[in-house]
Amino acid sequence: MAEQTIPNWLAKRTFLTPERIAVESSGHVWTYRELDERARTTAAKFACFGVREGDRVALLVKNGMHTVEIIHALHYIGAVLVPLNVRLSAGELAWQVTDADARLFVYDSSQEEKAKAVAEKVPGCEAVSWGTLASTAPGSGDPPLKRVMALDALHSIMYTSGTTGRPKGVMLTYGNHWWSAVSSALNLGLHTGDRWLACVPMFHMSGLSILIRSVIYGITLVVHESFQPDVVNRALMKEKVTIVSVVSAMLDRMVEQLGSSAYPETFRCMLLGGGPVPLPLLDKCLRKRIPVFQTYGLTETASQIATLPPEYMADKSGSAGKPLFPSELRIVADGKEQLPGQEGEIVVKGPTVTPGYWKRERATANTLRDGWLHTGDIGYVDEDGFLYVLDRRSDLIISGGENVYPAEVESHLTSHPAVREAGVTGVPHPRWGQVPVAFVSLKDDHAVSEEALRQYCREKLAKYKVPVRIHFVDKLPRNASNKLLRRELLKLL
Amino acid sequence: MAEQTIPNWLAKRTFLTPERIAVESSGHVWTYRELDERARTTAAKFACFGVREGDRVALLVKNGMHTVEIIHALHYIGAVLVPLNVRLSAGELAWQVTDADARLFVYDSSQEEKAKAVAEKVPGCEAVSWGTLASTAPGSGDPPLKRVMALDALHSIMYTSGTTGRPKGVMLTYGNHWWSAVSSALNLGLHTGDRWLACVPMFHMSGLSILIRSVIYGITLVVHESFQPDVVNRALMKEKVTIVSVVSAMLDRMVEQLGSSAYPETFRCMLLGGGPVPLPLLDKCLRKRIPVFQTYGLTETASQIATLPPEYMADKSGSAGKPLFPSELRIVADGKEQLPGQEGEIVVKGPTVTPGYWKRERATANTLRDGWLHTGDIGYVDEDGFLYVLDRRSDLIISGGENVYPAEVESHLTSHPAVREAGVTGVPHPRWGQVPVAFVSLKDDHAVSEEALRQYCREKLAKYKVPVRIHFVDKLPRNASNKLLRRELLKLL
Repeated sequence: MAEQTIPNWLAKRTFLTPERIAVESSGHVWTYRELDERARTTAAKFACFGVREGDRVALLVKNGMHTVEIIHALHYIGAVLVPLNVRLSAGELAWQVTDADARLFVYDSSQEEKAKAVAEKVPGCEAVSWGTLASTAPGSGDPPLKRVMALDALHSIMYTSGTTGRPKGVMLTYGNHWWSAVSSALNLGLHTGDRWLACVPMFHMSGLSILIRSVIYGITLVVHESFQPDVVNRALMKEKVTIVSVVSAMLDRMVEQLGSSAYPETFRCMLLGGGPVPLPLLDKCLRKRIPVFQTYGLTETASQIATLPPEYMADKSGSAGKPLFPSELRIVADGKEQLPGQEGEIVVKGPTVTPGYWKRERATANTLRDGWLHTGDIGYVDEDGFLYVLDRRSDLIISGGENVYPAEVESHLTSHPAVREAGVTGVPHPRWGQVPVAFVSLKDDHAVSEEALRQYCREKLAKYKVPVRIHFVDKLPRNASNKLLRRELLKLL
Repeated sequence: MAEQTIPNWLAKRTFLTPERIAVESSGHVWTYRELDERARTTAAKFACFGVREGDRVALLVKNGMHTVEIIHALHYIGAVLVPLNVRLSAGELAWQVTDADARLFVYDSSQEEKAKAVAEKVPGCEAVSWGTLASTAPGSGDPPLKRVMALDALHSIMYTSGTTGRPKGVMLTYGNHWWSAVSSALNLGLHTGDRWLACVPMFHMSGLSILIRSVIYGITLVVHESFQPDVVNRALMKEKVTIVSVVSAMLDRMVEQLGSSAYPETFRCMLLGGGPVPLPLLDKCLRKRIPVFQTYGLTETASQIATLPPEYMADKSGSAGKPLFPSELRIVADGKEQLPGQEGEIVVKGPTVTPGYWKRERATANTLRDGWLHTGDIGYVDEDGFLYVLDRRSDLIISGGENVYPAEVESHLTSHPAVREAGVTGVPHPRWGQVPVAFVSLKDDHAVSEEALRQYCREKLAKYKVPVRIHFVDKLPRNASNKLLRRELLKLL
C-alpha cells in the first residue's frame, strides 16, 4: 500500500470552512482564513531564517494567538516542533535545545531574559524573538508550502523526564496526532459550534492536542495565556465554551470559585487529565453535575488513551475508563497479562503511540516491545474493563499537572559537594495535588543548611521541582540490591 | 512502521458501551451486548460450514436485523463479504458469485426461489438459507474469532457494472470503511444519541456504510426492510431518527408525503446521494428547512467523498460540496488539472479509495493511477472549490438510486438473434430520476416486436435495467471511429 498521507490540516480546514472562527483570545478573533494567511506568511519568514522540512524548531512561548500561528507555520514548512516548558530553568532548556539539534530557537517577549541565557549556552543554534521574526520581511520567492503530509512524518519532539537520567524527547508523528484527534471525537462526540478552551500550556500535550483537534474538527480554539479560575469559569458560564481540558488542581480551584453557581447546559465536557484525582473532588463534581471525563494519557500516547464518561462517575469513581476506540490496553506482570483486579504495569498499543524516543535507541527498545508501549505506570482493570491507575510510573510526582521525576531532583541534590545520597518523594498538597519533599544524608564532616540546598536546587531546576522540605537523615531506605525504596521515605519522619 | 491494525469493531464497541441500543427494526431492539453475542454465535456457525478467514461469502438478503448479525459474524471470522443486489436476475447473481470465488452463498427466505436458481448455476459454491444456518448447532470448539484486523485486510467485494463488459468487484478494505466513517463524522459531527436510519439496502454502499458507522460511533442503526415514504417520515417525526440516507427519488416522495408538516429539530441530517438531484426538489427542501447534505460518492470510495453542508444549499444549489477532510479531488482533462469553471474528469485520492478491482489488473491499472482514482464522471469546481457533477461516468443512468450501465443492457440486446446493434440512454422520470430507453436496428430479414425484446431483457436483467421503451431505427449515431454516441440517441426521436 502506498504511504498514507493527509492534507495539511490548516489548508484543508480553511478550504472547507474559511469563515468559521479558528482562534479566540482576550477579545481577539481570527477566522480560519485569517489564521491561514498568517501561518503562510510566517512560514515564509521561517524559510528566510533557513528553516527547511525536517528541521527542528524549539519554541519557548506562552499561550497566545501567536503560538497557534507559529505552530501552523511550522506545519506549512514541514519543520519539527520542539515545544519548551517556560517553567524550566535556562540550563534545562539549553540541554533540550541541544539534544534536539534545533535549527532555530524562537521565544516570545515574556521569555526574553531566560531565552538569552539559553542562547548563550547553545551557541550553535540561532535564537530569534517572535517580535524579530514577525517583523522580518518575507523573502521574494514563496517557500514551498507543504500541502500534504505523510502520516508517519515527524511532527514534534516533546521532552519528558524519565525515571532515571536526562529528559528524553518523545517523537510524535502527524499520524499520532491525527489518530488522537479522531479517537477523542469518537469518544466525546463532535458538535458544530464546539469551543474548546486551552488554559493548559500548548507546550504540553494537553494544550497542543487542543490546537490540533480544533483545526481537524473545524471548531474554535479559545486560548487563555494562563489559568485563572474566575476567568475560566466566566468562559464556561458566559462565553459558550463547550469543552475545557484541566488537571485536578485546576478543577479544584474552579469548583471552589464557582461557589453555589452551576455551569450551563452548553458546557458539555470537563476533560480531566494529568494524574491522580482526589475522590472528594470527584464527589463534589458529581453533586454539582459537572460533566467530568476522567482520562489517562501520556506524552507517549499523544494525550488521552483511556477516558471515563460522566455517566460512570458515580459507579466507577476514580477510574480512568476504557481505552479509546482504536487503542488497546493490558495489565502485565512478569510478562503475563493479568486478570481483572490484579495489579501490574499498564501497557498500551495503538496508532497514537509514539514511534520512540529521539536518538535513544535503547530507551525506545526498552519501552516499545512488539508495538506495545510499557508505560511504567501501575494499575488494574476491574471486571467490567475499567482502568484504575494506582501509581504513575515508578514514583512520579505530579504537581499541579507538571511531572516531577524524583530521580532528576535526586541527581541534582547529590551533585552538591556536601550530599552523599538523596531521596525524593511526593506529599499531598491541597492545591497542587502533590509537592516534592527530599531526604538527604550528608557526607562525613560536611554541612549545609536546608535553605542553602533549596537555593542550590532553584538555580538549576524549575521551581515546581524544588523540594518544599528537605529532611536530613542518617541513611536512606534501600532494598537488598541497594535500590532506593522511595515509598519508604516518608516513614523516616 | 508496523502494519496498522484496528480492534474488531463490534467487540470494541460492546466493550465500551454494552448497554447502548445497537439495532432497532419493527419494534425489535438489540443492545450492543446482544448483537455481539449473536454475531459470535453466528460466526461459530459459519465456521461449521467451513468458512475461514479470507473466504468470500456471498449474501443475498433484504434489510433486517439478521443482515446486521450476519455481517458482523463475517467480521468475526475475517471472511470477505460479497453483498448481492436482490433486484438482479439469477443469471446476473450467479455470474457474481462465480467471479468472487465465493466459498458460501447465504440467502434469506425472501430470496428462496431466486437463490435456488442461482445455486443451480453455481454448483461449486455451497448455498445455505439463513434459516438453516441460524438453526445449525455451533460446533463444539470455539472458532478463533478475529479480535484485531489489519487496516489493509479485505473487508468486502461489491459489484458494480462498468461502462463496458461485465460487472467488476470493487475491493474494499477495513481501512477504506474505517476512514469513510471517520471522514463522515468529521463532516456531519457526532452526537451521543444519534439514530441513523437505513431504508436504503445494505447490499449497496449507502446502507452498508450506515451499518459500519453505527458500530464505530456507538449509535443506533434503525433498519427498515424497504423504503416507504410514510414509514420513513414517521421515523423522523416520532421515533427520534437524527440522520437518514436517501436518494433523490426517495426524498421527492418523502417531501410529497410530508405535506405541510415539518421535521422536528432532532432530525439533523438528510444525507442525499446517488446521482443528480432536480433543482426544484432542492428548492422545496430549502423552503421546508430540511437539512439536506448533498453528496458525491462511489462504491470505489466507500461512499461519500464530497458533501455540501445545508448552510450552502441556497448559495451553491446543485453542488456536491467539497472533498471530505482526508481526501483530495481534482478535475482533469488531457492529463492536466483544470482551472475553476473548466469541465473535466473527476479524479479523487484518499484513504477511502479502493485498492482496485477483484482479479481485474488491467481495469485497476486503468482506473487507479499514482493513487488517483479516475472516476469517469464529468464535473467542474467553482471559484470557491465547490464540486458540480455534470455527468455520472460516461452515460451512466441512475434510476431510483440504482446504477444502470447502458453497455450492459446493449450487450444483452445485441445477443438477441434479430438485433444488429443497440444503444441505450436515460430519459428523465418524475419518480425514478431517470429510466433507460433503447434504440435498436435489426438485421436484414429479421423481425422482433418491442414487447418480445423487452421480455427477452426481463429474462436476464434486473427489472430496473429493462428499457421502458425500445425504438427501432435504421442506424445508430456513431463518431468517426465508429464509437456509439449515446448522447445523440434521443435526437433520433
